[in-house]
Amino acid sequence: MSYVTYSAEHLDKFCMEVFSKFGFNDEEARIITDVLMLSDLYGIESHGMQRLVRYHKGIEKGMIKLDAKPEIVFETPVSAVIDAHDAMGQVVAHRGMELAIEKAKKSGIAIVSIKNSNHFGIAGYYAKMACDAGLVGFACTNSEAIMVPTFGKKAMIGSNPIAMAAPAKPYPFFFDASTTVVTRGKLEIYNKAEKPLPDSWALNKDGHPSNDASDVLKNIVAKNGGGIMPLGGSVEQTGSHKGYGWGMVCEFFSSILSMGTTSNKCCVNNVSGICHGLAAINPAFFGDADAIAEHFSTFLAELRESPKADGQSQIYTHGEKEIAAVADRKKNGIKVNVNTVREMVEMAKFVGVDAKAYFGDLADSDNNSKMFAGNY
Amino acid sequence: MSYVTYSAEHLDKFCMEVFSKFGFNDEEARIITDVLMLSDLYGIESHGMQRLVRYHKGIEKGMIKLDAKPEIVFETPVSAVIDAHDAMGQVVAHRGMELAIEKAKKSGIAIVSIKNSNHFGIAGYYAKMACDAGLVGFACTNSEAIMVPTFGKKAMIGSNPIAMAAPAKPYPFFFDASTTVVTRGKLEIYNKAEKPLPDSWALNKDGHPSNDASDVLKNIVAKNGGGIMPLGGSVEQTGSHKGYGWGMVCEFFSSILSMGTTSNKCCVNNVSGICHGLAAINPAFFGDADAIAEHFSTFLAELRESPKADGQSQIYTHGEKEIAAVADRKKNGIKVNVNTVREMVEMAKFVGVDAKAYFGDLADSDNNSKMFAGNY
Repeated sequence: MSYVTYSAEHLDKFCMEVFSKFGFNDEEARIITDVLMLSDLYGIESHGMQRLVRYHKGIEKGMIKLDAKPEIVFETPVSAVIDAHDAMGQVVAHRGMELAIEKAKKSGIAIVSIKNSNHFGIAGYYAKMACDAGLVGFACTNSEAIMVPTFGKKAMIGSNPIAMAAPAKPYPFFFDASTTVVTRGKLEIYNKAEKPLPDSWALNKDGHPSNDASDVLKNIVAKNGGGIMPLGGSVEQTGSHKGYGWGMVCEFFSSILSMGTTSNKCCVNNVSGICHGLAAINPAFFGDADAIAEHFSTFLAELRESPKADGQSQIYTHGEKEIAAVADRKKNGIKVNVNTVREMVEMAKFVGVDAKAYFGDLADSDNNSKMFAGNY
Repeated sequence: MSYVTYSAEHLDKFCMEVFSKFGFNDEEARIITDVLMLSDLYGIESHGMQRLVRYHKGIEKGMIKLDAKPEIVFETPVSAVIDAHDAMGQVVAHRGMELAIEKAKKSGIAIVSIKNSNHFGIAGYYAKMACDAGLVGFACTNSEAIMVPTFGKKAMIGSNPIAMAAPAKPYPFFFDASTTVVTRGKLEIYNKAEKPLPDSWALNKDGHPSNDASDVLKNIVAKNGGGIMPLGGSVEQTGSHKGYGWGMVCEFFSSILSMGTTSNKCCVNNVSGICHGLAAINPAFFGDADAIAEHFSTFLAELRESPKADGQSQIYTHGEKEIAAVADRKKNGIKVNVNTVREMVEMAKFVGVDAKAYFGDLADSDNNSKMFAGNY
């Protein structure tokens, strides 16, 4: 598997141009690009440029509607339900978190549940929005079913990530994790790299453990059965029912509170139906917000400074690796898998962006990528 | 390991009498007994009668203060911080959740964070209180450090359970899970039974995997190092950082928001400092509460009815096993480990309850139990 390195500015410019050509206005293109770039800058390769093909195909097939007008269908000072009407996930989730932040600043706590949306990138982006505003942020999203419930063999729940971000020094607490052992994006990376999957990640169509990324992904797309295990594996002894439970918590805030489409029914027949849950909590409604952040910072420092296991030199707190990744990628650039570059080339050609200007000779090569054959 | 079976009524009466003799008033004894009984009725052996010794020792050593007067130190229509002043955990958490329910009924959402409390039993009890009131409930608690953060060798975070309960038919969604692979209570059961621990559960004092429950528990008590792995194990490949992250989410709502004692500092020198986080969400602030519960019920039914893995006959949704357990235990009684009975006998003798009337010949035997030698 080979990688090509590009500067963050280069990829940012590419995304802005491509999404503008698709028809998004400047503000919308900026939001979408920011979400994608934050993922690659944070080292979450699965949700950065690697995800572009999903948006390309989603727009092409009409799952993502550029002219959608998201609508607040229920609202109180602490809550809102938004019907996205098939809008681009990033755009409506950004708006939803802005609403949650505004409400939490006034009312202390706010939850916004969004239905009929699309894939919104990394959940952590929206949690971070609240954190950047001095609040505690939460974000989660359901998605096409990929998690097999404990004792099942059919994927019924999405990878259903839940993210939390909270103010702390020297950097915020930033926790963003799928409730499956790994994400579909990770399987796609293994597939593109033609590497066998680690044990305890995935199940084949009969509900048996599998190391074959290609087979698992094909079965997921064809809805043949199998999928990814919940965090905790596939047996109760290792806590499978706990990861499955966290997947349900995500489902509740996204698809249940909004009366939206649950993971087992979304992303079929070119309709997404994906739902998001967003929340903001104002720490000033619990006391001195600065003192609370300082108290949290102290505990985070104690964790980092606690004794290391033999052979380990560092204990990370959540968000620390991301800070290091941003510094590295701003200095050394972002590595993009050649297969992903080929998807970007195809996307550029589709909307009429000069692929050669961005990718040189790679723009000329035959498209022999393992283009994701999903139903979007 | 041998067990003795008692009726729920018998154990309920014992707990009521013992806690009354300790000096709790009727309402308080009722709450404490209810929390303990719900645990045993739900089949959560680790947190029922098995936990009595902890309360016995906690009261004896002054960690739990019977005359404590919990105090609301910060309050808004959506939030409260309570200083428990070393009160019995069940009593103050019950009061905290009543406050959260009252606020959520009026304001839509409420979070209550409690500091300087004690072990409060199963988190799910408090989440269920909100659910019984037609709301969605959350409860979490920090506890004496037992979770070793990823790449560490010293326990820094408690088992930090988080529970959620939400209205659904034919029974509510009830999810109550430690953010460690298993709880300390499970290790205590293996220790009493002198069984080796399964792999991927615990670490010895050097941060290496261990199957020795006795050694791990001794190290935890002596704060020598080691402890239990986060949900997801001890390496990132299986998601260790995710369970560790969930432990931090629990810590945030319990010890951070309340400016209380973090897990790494609680339960030392006969001071508990344990903190709880409680939340209630009113679904009517998101639309038609009945329709939302019905929507959730549909998804839960679809999960139960989805295809089973080869060799499995049932997919459970969270709360289903508990409903079955209650029916079984009300009919067939509750099995109590003989070692636990011996602890109950000692407790009865300590407060002047007629142990022989409750436990017959077991009240006469020498106390050769593996009485938990914790620092409470």
